[in-house]
Amino acid sequence: MYQKKISMNVIRRLPKYHSYLIELMERGVVKVSSRELSEITGFTASQIRQDLNNFGGFGKQGSGYEVELLFKEISDILGLNMSYKTIIIGAGNLGQAIANYPGFKKYALDIKALFDVNPKLIGMKIHSLDVLDIDTISDYIKDNNIEIAIICTPKEAVKKVARILEKTNIKGIWNFAPVDFTVNADIKVESVNLTDSLFVLSYMISQEEKN
Amino acid sequence: MYQKKISMNVIRRLPKYHSYLIELMERGVVKVSSRELSEITGFTASQIRQDLNNFGGFGKQGSGYEVELLFKEISDILGLNMSYKTIIIGAGNLGQAIANYPGFKKYALDIKALFDVNPKLIGMKIHSLDVLDIDTISDYIKDNNIEIAIICTPKEAVKKVARILEKTNIKGIWNFAPVDFTVNADIKVESVNLTDSLFVLSYMISQEEKN
Repeated sequence: MYQKKISMNVIRRLPKYHSYLIELMERGVVKVSSRELSEITGFTASQIRQDLNNFGGFGKQGSGYEVELLFKEISDILGLNMSYKTIIIGAGNLGQAIANYPGFKKYALDIKALFDVNPKLIGMKIHSLDVLDIDTISDYIKDNNIEIAIICTPKEAVKKVARILEKTNIKGIWNFAPVDFTVNADIKVESVNLTDSLFVLSYMISQEEKN
Repeated sequence: MYQKKISMNVIRRLPKYHSYLIELMERGVVKVSSRELSEITGFTASQIRQDLNNFGGFGKQGSGYEVELLFKEISDILGLNMSYKTIIIGAGNLGQAIANYPGFKKYALDIKALFDVNPKLIGMKIHSLDVLDIDTISDYIKDNNIEIAIICTPKEAVKKVARILEKTNIKGIWNFAPVDFTVNADIKVESVNLTDSLFVLSYMISQEEKN
């Protein structure tokens, strides 16, 4: 299909298109121009055309994009029609919150179990998921074809967890711990960065005060 | 200072500059060109110059940016030299995880208390913070000059919480519940969108499989 290297900046805009297209479908909109998309998304029309052209271009000059078709294409590009067998590492507050977070099931994540080092947590059930001993994780990943690991451990534990995961056939790591780490290149890593979002709020409030 | 309206796309890039500049300072880099910044950030050099020009421009043509000065300016623009009195609404797993998340204290957030409707949680201490009755929240905000509320409730409760906050002098809401809501315009709202990050991971894994 589209084999060329797509920049992460483009990829990070795709989820935005995805959610705005849902909004348009809910409003019953059938066709949308890049200018209209620009008004909703805040990206420039030329940026939008460039972004979508990376994937073959879904619109004809002057006639705009078909909303439902574009939505399906973007969902497909994002791999949202797939389902990934997933485990959560760290069964503390954050791990439990993630296990219970609504909306993930709809997209890609099929959460199978949680893992922890804490004997008090091991053996518990959290939202009908077992909390298992971290020492059994490599076998579990292998036996259950686990594809994604979500890291919810304290940051001190992350590097050790990364070393363990590196020796498995895991495909991706979704990291919630506020620490960077490296694994071999065939494992994809995406870190959730909560401070970026906090900084935007801080910016908006501080600007209000300056005015 | 800079009174003109700055686009949210620019503002959302500022935290990235902020974190890359920390990296540069840690490496002892004193000066950086927009071309070098481009290599690190993945934004184009002209994008970076445009972004920074919004705030008055910190570099001279040909001589690059002073890393520490630029870092201080961006921190200032983001309001990170401020400290905001903050409460967490919802003392379940997510609220507790946020109360305990390292790194927030360093930036802007001075968390004072948690609020909940659950009698089992009210009266508890979480990481030395009191869990208080949601019914007392309006008075608490007023008496303690609370500026930011972090919403960690189930999504069903969000609209009710928003109605309560709207009648207070709160300045900003940081929303972790996966639901949109509106409040009057003098309250700034920033929602954490975890699915965007999940979609990027899903994209990277699915591309790997297609290749």
